[in-house]
Amino acid sequence: MALAVQDGLQGVVAAATALSEVDGEAGHLTLRGYAVEELAPRASFEEVVHLLWHGRLPSPAQHRELCAELHARRALPAATLSLLSAAAGERLPHMDALRMGVASLGLGAGAAGHEQAALRLIAAFPGLVGAYDRLLRGEQPAPVRSDLGHAAHALQQVWGREPSPEHARGLETYLNTVCDHGLNASTFAARVIVSTGSDLVSAICGATGALKGPLHGGAPGPALDMVFEIGRAERAEAVLRGKLERGERLMGFGHRVYRVRDPRADVLAAAAERFFQSGGDAELYALARQVEAVALRLLRERKPDRRLDTNVEFYTALLLHGLGLETALFTPMFAVGRVAGWTAHAMEQASNGKLIRPDSRYVGPRGLRYTALEER
Amino acid sequence: MALAVQDGLQGVVAAATALSEVDGEAGHLTLRGYAVEELAPRASFEEVVHLLWHGRLPSPAQHRELCAELHARRALPAATLSLLSAAAGERLPHMDALRMGVASLGLGAGAAGHEQAALRLIAAFPGLVGAYDRLLRGEQPAPVRSDLGHAAHALQQVWGREPSPEHARGLETYLNTVCDHGLNASTFAARVIVSTGSDLVSAICGATGALKGPLHGGAPGPALDMVFEIGRAERAEAVLRGKLERGERLMGFGHRVYRVRDPRADVLAAAAERFFQSGGDAELYALARQVEAVALRLLRERKPDRRLDTNVEFYTALLLHGLGLETALFTPMFAVGRVAGWTAHAMEQASNGKLIRPDSRYVGPRGLRYTALEER
Repeated sequence: MALAVQDGLQGVVAAATALSEVDGEAGHLTLRGYAVEELAPRASFEEVVHLLWHGRLPSPAQHRELCAELHARRALPAATLSLLSAAAGERLPHMDALRMGVASLGLGAGAAGHEQAALRLIAAFPGLVGAYDRLLRGEQPAPVRSDLGHAAHALQQVWGREPSPEHARGLETYLNTVCDHGLNASTFAARVIVSTGSDLVSAICGATGALKGPLHGGAPGPALDMVFEIGRAERAEAVLRGKLERGERLMGFGHRVYRVRDPRADVLAAAAERFFQSGGDAELYALARQVEAVALRLLRERKPDRRLDTNVEFYTALLLHGLGLETALFTPMFAVGRVAGWTAHAMEQASNGKLIRPDSRYVGPRGLRYTALEER
Repeated sequence: MALAVQDGLQGVVAAATALSEVDGEAGHLTLRGYAVEELAPRASFEEVVHLLWHGRLPSPAQHRELCAELHARRALPAATLSLLSAAAGERLPHMDALRMGVASLGLGAGAAGHEQAALRLIAAFPGLVGAYDRLLRGEQPAPVRSDLGHAAHALQQVWGREPSPEHARGLETYLNTVCDHGLNASTFAARVIVSTGSDLVSAICGATGALKGPLHGGAPGPALDMVFEIGRAERAEAVLRGKLERGERLMGFGHRVYRVRDPRADVLAAAAERFFQSGGDAELYALARQVEAVALRLLRERKPDRRLDTNVEFYTALLLHGLGLETALFTPMFAVGRVAGWTAHAMEQASNGKLIRPDSRYVGPRGLRYTALEER
């Protein structure tokens, strides 16, 4: 008897993992044993990378060593920079350029093992993202600095100057918050690729390509646009009611997996509040919170039986915009954080997984006979 | 109750497809309705591409149009050639260079739709493979010619000269034979990536990375080495018995899916026989057939209950070696053929599939508390 097609593989458990647990019913995200709200605001990104890769937070000596290993791998190969320049000349989207840049990271790496390649990938992502953004703006890539932490380095690579500690901490909390999230489509793509015995550059290149797609989620484009469109708090109810009556989706609310509040939204809301108190655009923050309150009230009025909560994209947009990053950089910065999880999953798959090769069901004809071209 | 982890997804039906059917029990491979042995030796590669993409063989006018569309997309972007040169300078493996080259094909494409991107990918693969092989040998990439069919072009891009019709037909039958094969790991990677709404360059880049892995299969490295090691037919039995007694696997026999003879092996055996009659190394062909006969006899002696038949890799190696291609080009040439199926699957997924996002089971701890770095 033929088995049912499990389109989308929803509900199919494709891997056992010690990396993260997404409990959508309860609204929990656990990262190697730590609740995201426990870990993300406190740890450095480098600590989180060590945790994901090795299962425990690093000792001070391990932390120093990891930072030094990453510092040593920040510079991009000349051929990668030339490629990014060519892409900028054609004004390709950021994520296309990032995919090209990632694919080229086999250069200058020698015959590295998985962890060496993973270090290279983590270290190079901020440079790939920042250099391309600068090239698009007609500026030269910023020089690599080895005296900055990873999050500060990521902002310096975009801006060409050292960010404030508040800016760096704001981005660091963001990177930690999105570092891993179970078997999302990009992470699964990385595991499928590495399951053939392929290398980490190939796996992360595939994951980057998967993240590019608008259905992937996590990448906040339009969430803040709604806030800008509303502009003033007193317009929120009229604008949002209008959208709902026209059947439009309110961007920034609801998630495929979480049935209650996405815990990452809370972490990012707190980070945004902290950051905006320290000198960001406090009016924008207040407006966004008011829009959120009205949106949640209206959504509950209309669908009292279904909880539609603020999702991670809403606060991602608010925080990253507050930090001074353009919308076009939101998905690339998500990748700067998520590459920690991608590399951890790829190494976990490589060490204990087997070839991922599902079946398909054929729904076409059989037994056709070839006729020569000129007889058709 | 927790669902079982379906490690490797074996037996999970992840997609309905009208592209190909692998019937491993019966030893059949159907491509869009045609048995592989009906289609592969007769059709041009361009006909097979049209068949996979559109579900029927092209009319003469459609065939002319497709050939013209492909001819127009053969040239590689300058930045891609620079990247391949840099890779050759580091003597990276062919498949690493191919992955880099594929990732860069967003260049020069504009905002193309899926079929435009697919045409670009199919057309550019022979140039990527041939140019890189020439650069590794210290030669310049061969000029692009628009008066050759796809298979002849693929050989011309490696050798810099037009191949004989027998060489072109030999490669064409090979490309057709490996054009698609259900949901293998690379094809599945392409479907996962495009399921997010991403683009075909990203999907095919991921598939290329997956093909790189030694567990993928289809890529014949060591199958012919055994024949060379044996050298003379009268040594076959002693060498093969020695291998089996030491518990070594006989490369070129057995397949994960096929329980009987892989139908592709028959197609390639016939193509090899035809080609070797027309002027290849007839002694090598005869030796390979004798080694095969002894290997099958010994395998049946040892495991009479299990059918272990000659697989596609054995005859791939024999045919491609006979055509004059180095072993390092076998997997890249497999990709030149398989990109037809990858693009067809990616377009099928994009037109009717949904986001592929399986679940994972968490097997780590919970509820850990963060301690500051200096306290660890």
